[in-house]
Amino acid sequence: MNKVRIAILGLGNVGRGVWKILNTNKEEILKRSGYDIEVAKILVRDASKDRGIQVPEGVVTTNPDEIFNDNTIKIVVELMGGINPAQEYILKAIRGKKHVVTANKALISTNGEALTAEAREHGVALYYEASVAGGIPIIHGINESLTANKIEKIVGIINGTTNYILTKMTYEGVGFDEALKEAQAKGFAEADPTSDIEAYDAMYKLGILASLSFGTQVDVNNIYREGISNISKTDIQYAKELGYAIKLLAVGKDENNKLELRVHPALIPSSHPLSNVNDVYNAIFIKGNAVGDLMLYGKGAGELPTGSAVVSDIISVLRNASDYAETANYSGGYWDKKVMDMKDTFTRYYIRISVKDIPGVLGRITTIFGENEVSLSSVIQKEKKEGLVQIVLLTHDTHEGNINNAIEKIEELNSVEKIENIIRVEEF
Amino acid sequence: MNKVRIAILGLGNVGRGVWKILNTNKEEILKRSGYDIEVAKILVRDASKDRGIQVPEGVVTTNPDEIFNDNTIKIVVELMGGINPAQEYILKAIRGKKHVVTANKALISTNGEALTAEAREHGVALYYEASVAGGIPIIHGINESLTANKIEKIVGIINGTTNYILTKMTYEGVGFDEALKEAQAKGFAEADPTSDIEAYDAMYKLGILASLSFGTQVDVNNIYREGISNISKTDIQYAKELGYAIKLLAVGKDENNKLELRVHPALIPSSHPLSNVNDVYNAIFIKGNAVGDLMLYGKGAGELPTGSAVVSDIISVLRNASDYAETANYSGGYWDKKVMDMKDTFTRYYIRISVKDIPGVLGRITTIFGENEVSLSSVIQKEKKEGLVQIVLLTHDTHEGNINNAIEKIEELNSVEKIENIIRVEEF
Repeated sequence: MNKVRIAILGLGNVGRGVWKILNTNKEEILKRSGYDIEVAKILVRDASKDRGIQVPEGVVTTNPDEIFNDNTIKIVVELMGGINPAQEYILKAIRGKKHVVTANKALISTNGEALTAEAREHGVALYYEASVAGGIPIIHGINESLTANKIEKIVGIINGTTNYILTKMTYEGVGFDEALKEAQAKGFAEADPTSDIEAYDAMYKLGILASLSFGTQVDVNNIYREGISNISKTDIQYAKELGYAIKLLAVGKDENNKLELRVHPALIPSSHPLSNVNDVYNAIFIKGNAVGDLMLYGKGAGELPTGSAVVSDIISVLRNASDYAETANYSGGYWDKKVMDMKDTFTRYYIRISVKDIPGVLGRITTIFGENEVSLSSVIQKEKKEGLVQIVLLTHDTHEGNINNAIEKIEELNSVEKIENIIRVEEF
Repeated sequence: MNKVRIAILGLGNVGRGVWKILNTNKEEILKRSGYDIEVAKILVRDASKDRGIQVPEGVVTTNPDEIFNDNTIKIVVELMGGINPAQEYILKAIRGKKHVVTANKALISTNGEALTAEAREHGVALYYEASVAGGIPIIHGINESLTANKIEKIVGIINGTTNYILTKMTYEGVGFDEALKEAQAKGFAEADPTSDIEAYDAMYKLGILASLSFGTQVDVNNIYREGISNISKTDIQYAKELGYAIKLLAVGKDENNKLELRVHPALIPSSHPLSNVNDVYNAIFIKGNAVGDLMLYGKGAGELPTGSAVVSDIISVLRNASDYAETANYSGGYWDKKVMDMKDTFTRYYIRISVKDIPGVLGRITTIFGENEVSLSSVIQKEKKEGLVQIVLLTHDTHEGNINNAIEKIEELNSVEKIENIIRVEEF
């Protein structure tokens, strides 16, 4: 029986999941990879910390040299996250002819193309299925199973934390702050939740998905990003009345080689399968010009689902290890495509406005929309609360520039107290 | 630029789709495969038939030798279906060192292991993503992305024809015969619909999915098979009232290395995502011990979706062609697992009985169920129609053997006119 020694960098949530799977599913992994996998070293910052798993003496180390200077270690599994020192370690591994499996979305989204080129040059594998949507095989899907397609559109719910919060707000009617606190208590949100709530996490993931789908290296700085902290239960309630659910969406579209890239909360029709993706589940909807509509749904986070992607990648490395065929595939460098300015994007909008209870105010508002070429599909005027009336509008498809111009004018009206929210609507 | 010559066997629906994709997405395919693909030959039975596409002079042929004796043809794409001569041609290709891509479910489900061994021996690829669920990347998913898992359960809607018919019956209230006629008129069902309606098609596909998921070569003759011709709109209506949809399901379960393998109509809870998979869409739900719940959804048939899987497989062959790494992977031969007898399966049942309007009949029926250890979760008694009363029962989980014993006794009751239907209920 073949034996292989591997090292894991980082022993947090995912590292622990990988350890558990390698032990629990030993027999399956042996059959499918042809190898008995030994975790030779695990790099941590603090070796004394209890992580709730039994690791043999001598495996846990704080010294990276024990890994990079050991030629018997053939695969490095990077699960530290962040750019550095993760990048430095991955490059050391590649240059030392070690295969790499990583779950690092920040690194792959910003540097996936260069790292892949480096891996190819040194004849080693670089796999990163776990970097997007946990256990859902979306990277393999795009990189291998949909290669016959021109992918036109990719729309994903790819952040579990915000989806958990929005689900709570939708089904239990709690506010954002309370839902966030509960997410933190259950371990679904971090103490500093900024990366999830403000959609940096989803932005990195969209960077990877869009690069691979559209065959161009997307600069994540060109992705429009808006978090969910501005979503109130009032908006969720109105959306429901109108037949929509509110989700944090990552949207990528390729229209004649011009890309639309945006991450923001959006209303989606209750009839669309994405609207029923709840709690910490993720789902990615893809439209290809051959395959048509496709959706992948599953657990986007958690030690075992993400560990499933990492360990499956390790098995792929081992199957291909004899000859390194196509082991480092990153299809993000084929074409040069421009990203559309947000003001040129063309979509529908939900707009909620608080106005004073003065005759004619609705007329004035709808007139301004008309003057700016924004046509309205529905208008709800609600009874007043604390002296103010709520006006909720849904527009037809329109350019964002027109919306901005109209809103600027509406804000100047004396009768308008506040533009409470503007949320995009995604139709399919 | 590299050039490669390929041959296609069969120019039906899928063959036409492959031809269209190779032409429409030429640039994408070139970038992703590194090859300019030339369709050198297409084998057909009748060269004079108009197939609605423009193929250059000399490409269409009725002589297989023009393909197998031509050493410049490197890949053979088998899209004829059926066991022979497809099998003979695939073996000729493999032995002649040509890579093979096939969409042949009957062949792979019955002979996948042997053909894979043959391909490995000759150092060529054998890919068959298109053999199950059209454009949905379920084969790659199981074979490559879920290898870290012990797969416990796979439940699929994998026949588009029956799903179209059941969707029509559910949402338009038409009967089976009318729905079938409409499916035939739209090209979703064949003139002889037996293979779809009686679930042979789904049985072959489950054979492949179960073999790969559970790592054992499943004999399709051991799969319990029941078609949908017995489903009436009355059953669909009662199911709806009880909170269920009726779908043709392919179910595979691995419980401590004992397999449950069955294809039959089933009630599934309306809250489960599979219940909303309608028309010709397919979906496959998988539960792995690491990844948890996963679902893949998309178009399970049609020239372009199935063509997408075929052409993506061709691209995979070309990427790996330099060294043939792991190009023939069929994980069905790892373990020897037994298939459970249907009478030992343990599930819930929907039972509809027509009885005479005689006092005490419901009591007699429920007593018999109790005596046979079948406990009931709901009982509906409906007003009489044509002198008969409808009794609809839902059982709790029970062994099929107990159901059979109870039904035998109930059929003997004078007051019972007819056991109208017995349909399994799948809970998740």
